[in-house]
Amino acid sequence: MGDDTGIRVMAEPLKTFCVEVFEELNVPTEDAKIVADNLVSADLRGISSHGVARLRRYVKGLQDGVMLARPETRVVHETPATALIDGGDGLGQPVSRRAMQLAIDKAGQVGAGFVSVRNSNHFGIAGYYSMMALERDMIGISMTNAAVLVVPTFGRNAMLGTNPISVAAPAGEELPFVLDMATSTVPRGKLEVYNRKEEPLPLGWATDESGVPTTDAAQVLDNFIKLAGGGLLSLGGAGELLGGHKGYGMALLVDILSGVLPGAGYANNIYLKDDSGNALPANVGHFFGALRVDGFRPVEQFKATMDDVVRRLKATPKAAGQGRIYIHGEKEFEIAQDRKISGVVLHPKVVADLKAMAEEFGVAYIL
Amino acid sequence: MGDDTGIRVMAEPLKTFCVEVFEELNVPTEDAKIVADNLVSADLRGISSHGVARLRRYVKGLQDGVMLARPETRVVHETPATALIDGGDGLGQPVSRRAMQLAIDKAGQVGAGFVSVRNSNHFGIAGYYSMMALERDMIGISMTNAAVLVVPTFGRNAMLGTNPISVAAPAGEELPFVLDMATSTVPRGKLEVYNRKEEPLPLGWATDESGVPTTDAAQVLDNFIKLAGGGLLSLGGAGELLGGHKGYGMALLVDILSGVLPGAGYANNIYLKDDSGNALPANVGHFFGALRVDGFRPVEQFKATMDDVVRRLKATPKAAGQGRIYIHGEKEFEIAQDRKISGVVLHPKVVADLKAMAEEFGVAYIL
Repeated sequence: MGDDTGIRVMAEPLKTFCVEVFEELNVPTEDAKIVADNLVSADLRGISSHGVARLRRYVKGLQDGVMLARPETRVVHETPATALIDGGDGLGQPVSRRAMQLAIDKAGQVGAGFVSVRNSNHFGIAGYYSMMALERDMIGISMTNAAVLVVPTFGRNAMLGTNPISVAAPAGEELPFVLDMATSTVPRGKLEVYNRKEEPLPLGWATDESGVPTTDAAQVLDNFIKLAGGGLLSLGGAGELLGGHKGYGMALLVDILSGVLPGAGYANNIYLKDDSGNALPANVGHFFGALRVDGFRPVEQFKATMDDVVRRLKATPKAAGQGRIYIHGEKEFEIAQDRKISGVVLHPKVVADLKAMAEEFGVAYIL
Repeated sequence: MGDDTGIRVMAEPLKTFCVEVFEELNVPTEDAKIVADNLVSADLRGISSHGVARLRRYVKGLQDGVMLARPETRVVHETPATALIDGGDGLGQPVSRRAMQLAIDKAGQVGAGFVSVRNSNHFGIAGYYSMMALERDMIGISMTNAAVLVVPTFGRNAMLGTNPISVAAPAGEELPFVLDMATSTVPRGKLEVYNRKEEPLPLGWATDESGVPTTDAAQVLDNFIKLAGGGLLSLGGAGELLGGHKGYGMALLVDILSGVLPGAGYANNIYLKDDSGNALPANVGHFFGALRVDGFRPVEQFKATMDDVVRRLKATPKAAGQGRIYIHGEKEFEIAQDRKISGVVLHPKVVADLKAMAEEFGVAYIL
């Protein structure tokens, strides 16, 4: 995260490029803009695993017909404070942005709004949606289930996704609180980094094919491909001694709200393949929520207290050898501030792939 | 949890005893019954740290006037889906039960209901409130802030509570999902157990007074008393390598929703003392929520999928050396099933203290 080695590319032309690629794949311009904004936002915030490095996967999904460029999205059911949306197997970002907007509108009407989504796909960074609530002085909530990579406590095989949770809350003069975390100790991408560096994994990140914690990144990644067993560990690691059952509980909670509640995929019943091994629609599910701060307390009072919380935490004495205490989202805001001016940082392989897509789709690559 | 060594006492007469003690302290019978039910529920579920072992602390709070027996509780503000309740410095359980009931009623009306509470006190086990939603086919949410024991990531001093989160979701034939977890790796009571046994703490539970992880339980507990620094670690442990910043984020999230949102105490601005060192009203805050399942999807479909999730997880192969995979709440349901028949299990010191209170308040101790 926030690695500065790579090729600098300015955010706005990069977004335009992504939009043009999606348009060539028959995605409506409005939807293409949402996906492009979401991907480049991730690169701006230093979360390159969820940035334009993902563009190829989306392109492939659209080409294979597993994701639909022009899905039939519809509100299946709603009450004043809740709704279920069917994403019609389209890209995850457009339906997610609209679902979060609906949650915010409902909160505007009755104080709280919650919207779950089924038949969707990868939605990018969770924080993109929770943060939409901030400009309306609301608390935003966003979560999603995901491809199966995480073993339950005492289990041998992956049965859950890295199932992220994001919650954003506004502050006054200080930066807002933006928690955006996978419920696994680390995401799969972190293992890939250690594998490239040929460094041993910290114990507590992943298990081998017998379900026992391992330091061997290559083995874990190889086991994923071969479906040989093992996988990532939930926050808290293996067993219950350091609270692994709590991380497992958070992952399961996200699956209940994002998968079971809307009737999307869930547990290992997601990202399925047909008998020939071809991917079926992923049926990813999401859950979005918004709470009006002034449904509880005047906004200015809330923000003043948030500022005080932030200042108390940042001013408290540091542990031996430590120089700074962070509030969640702060690192990403700092990275984004730099990258808005100096450009996002892309891996040379990602840039090469963008250029290949430029050629493939006849889109100008002027970045 | 679920330790079977101790004195067996039947739940119903134990509740009656607690009610009579509270009545002697001028607590209305209806309120006394709620607190008694909450405490004995914890003992039934094997969470003895939150059971009648706490009765003395509540009694002391009432005697000292820090908790009020007959508080002025009022709804300060509300919208169709939200409300803020002022607990008037009363016992935490009665106002919490009413706040959760209000959240459930609002969800019944508009699909979702969220209620935050300020000027309250310790509310017992969080799962007591989230589980109230189950009988209405709703998803229940409950959280609270708490006495300052947990150090933020990279911090030296405790700045947050163990800030638990509970979420309950109904199933069909299977047991409901009931997550009920402190956001710290372990609660303070776990350190007391290791201290009594004179066993070294696992690294990742707590830090010494310089903010560095330690195995010395006695030192950490002594530092708490002397306010010398250090404290419990968030889920994920020290630093960021194993995700300690995520646990810290969960703790801070609970503090924002339970403390900042209602205008209760927050961070280290809670459980304050006056200049003479006497406790002031704790100003604990809580946050409760309810979501109607059928605000999203027909209840029977949701429950059938929940059953399938539970069965898939329980049937998945076990890690080497492991025999069983648990769903959250399952262990507690099994313990409660036994204890409803055979009685709860109390430490001899707790029984001695109950007998002392019986004498003190002229209440019959026939258990």
